[in-house]
Amino acid sequence: MQVEGRHQRTIARADDGWAVEVVDQRRLPHDFVVARLESLEDAAVAIREMWVRGAPLIGVTAAYGLALALRDDASDEHVAHAIALLRATRPTGVNLRWAMDRAAATLAPLEAGARPDAAYALADRIADEDVATCESIGRHGLDIIRTLYAEADEERPVQLLTHCNAGWLATVDWGTALAPIYMAHDEGIPVHVWVDETRPRNQGAALTAWELGSHGVDHTVVVDNAGGHLMQRGLVDAVITGTDRTTAHGGVFNKIGTYLKALAAHDNDVPFYVALPGTTIDWTTTSAPEVVPIEERATAEVTTITGLAEGVGPTTVRLTPTGSPAANPAFDYTPARLVTGLITERGLCEASAEGLAGLYPEHAR
Amino acid sequence: MQVEGRHQRTIARADDGWAVEVVDQRRLPHDFVVARLESLEDAAVAIREMWVRGAPLIGVTAAYGLALALRDDASDEHVAHAIALLRATRPTGVNLRWAMDRAAATLAPLEAGARPDAAYALADRIADEDVATCESIGRHGLDIIRTLYAEADEERPVQLLTHCNAGWLATVDWGTALAPIYMAHDEGIPVHVWVDETRPRNQGAALTAWELGSHGVDHTVVVDNAGGHLMQRGLVDAVITGTDRTTAHGGVFNKIGTYLKALAAHDNDVPFYVALPGTTIDWTTTSAPEVVPIEERATAEVTTITGLAEGVGPTTVRLTPTGSPAANPAFDYTPARLVTGLITERGLCEASAEGLAGLYPEHAR
Repeated sequence: MQVEGRHQRTIARADDGWAVEVVDQRRLPHDFVVARLESLEDAAVAIREMWVRGAPLIGVTAAYGLALALRDDASDEHVAHAIALLRATRPTGVNLRWAMDRAAATLAPLEAGARPDAAYALADRIADEDVATCESIGRHGLDIIRTLYAEADEERPVQLLTHCNAGWLATVDWGTALAPIYMAHDEGIPVHVWVDETRPRNQGAALTAWELGSHGVDHTVVVDNAGGHLMQRGLVDAVITGTDRTTAHGGVFNKIGTYLKALAAHDNDVPFYVALPGTTIDWTTTSAPEVVPIEERATAEVTTITGLAEGVGPTTVRLTPTGSPAANPAFDYTPARLVTGLITERGLCEASAEGLAGLYPEHAR
Repeated sequence: MQVEGRHQRTIARADDGWAVEVVDQRRLPHDFVVARLESLEDAAVAIREMWVRGAPLIGVTAAYGLALALRDDASDEHVAHAIALLRATRPTGVNLRWAMDRAAATLAPLEAGARPDAAYALADRIADEDVATCESIGRHGLDIIRTLYAEADEERPVQLLTHCNAGWLATVDWGTALAPIYMAHDEGIPVHVWVDETRPRNQGAALTAWELGSHGVDHTVVVDNAGGHLMQRGLVDAVITGTDRTTAHGGVFNKIGTYLKALAAHDNDVPFYVALPGTTIDWTTTSAPEVVPIEERATAEVTTITGLAEGVGPTTVRLTPTGSPAANPAFDYTPARLVTGLITERGLCEASAEGLAGLYPEHAR
């Protein structure tokens, strides 16, 4: 999407053709910095420390990380080592597993000498496929926004609420949840987006607000506590979020707090949509979502926060008493019964095994 | 309650007998500072800028503020001026209105010369009544925690979740939602409290965590997004919050985000209790809670946050892009259907007109 009037992707090969450039998302929204990755370790750090985040972008970054890893050593052992290391960077992301499985299958039959070029080509292909997928999600979601606009009693912007960042910064371009919003904006439908700040890492306040603002989309940042109240007062026409993992029955693992917004949407008859590429569907998790392990991240994300101190620069401040422990579960589970529909690259479907099987018959059991 | 092994109230007359000392809650959790109020303006600033907060403590502070105002001028005009100024400091708090109505009724029949002493005596009485009220709330809520402990299948702490700060810092002593927890702890029932950080002002992370820690109660700070997940995983036995205003039908206005926790509790069969003194019941709001105006606070509370920068001291950092607007509704409404019970100084009741009328027949219509 647009940054300072110029088109930008979150990840791309550098001009030298082998290094990889990524938008360093830790520096946003205060600084727009493109970082250079030159090794497997660089890529692993970029994923683990969230220079890049968002399920699709993590998958693409891992694919490029594998290509970087194979430049010096493309032996079976090193391929296995690199894939294991990259898979372990974030335990929840299904795209990451999918990208690594695909890479393993692609590289296994090749001679070591052919593997580096093949790994780069695969990473490029996964990146381009991601852009195409997001465009399709955007087109299908756009239909929903067009309908909301047409059905409104009065001439006013369509009011959307989103949680976390499922915009182009979470993908290669367009985004998932935000793709329909960008397309609606680009075709002249007035939209206004309530942006949940999304504690503890504030991806909404930092990333979603920044990318919407950079592209010129009207938006307002609110704390995560506010969404229920906004819905009670009729100020939200629909909620659209992304997902890190959708179960085969249409349940949604997403950033912690998504479940609370889904409950509020349900209680106020506000439609709740989840936008996702088919690659984030975990066809193996068909039941018992309550046993899926949830990533517990560092408690410093809760006890401290980093922002821009005027005249000083990025500064980390402590929010809690020194003696108080914290806990930091990163995701929660939204049952399918609270989801109005899933917006995929193949169209809109009901959040159910039947709905997903209709769009992805090759995975249906 | 206890601070550094010493008993402390949030507000009390200074040793000179006329000035008023309050715990400056803006400085917590990093500094424990007692501030001195000497005038009407001091008291108004302390309420408006949230040196003191919590519905009951705001009422007591206003009562002392009125006493300070009358030391120099106790004319009818000045009484009216001071009451109007204090009433306007926070629009939502019903205790504030109640304290000022009571003061007006007490002072009106008196000669100007008798008013200052009467105003101090009234403020002292309101403070002492508040302590007695909180003790009663604590005793009634303690019964609930005792039962939860007795009913647990295994020997483990009772797991409670609370939002915002309804502890002794919100009152004169004991607190409302936390009073039962302190009493359970003091009688040896193992309790563990999940503390919502409570954006945007972080009263949970800053105040609830600090006061629980100071008193020795086991607790863990979580972001506001986490509570639904904790309930889904069976890690919460009950939610207890305070309230700024309870309607005559048992609906609850409280800190923004309370409604989301009530929805999650309902969805997971976790009991959701609201602790309140009868003074926070607004007998005039019997229907149409959707039209009650909600205080919109400064957006800087959303776009920036203040914490302790190591080696520097209290520092404010910006969290959002400079071009992104924010909104900051301070309270939300939890319908009575989501509230398991109201814990009052007169006992536990159903969150309904009938429930409240049973305990407060003098207000029943």
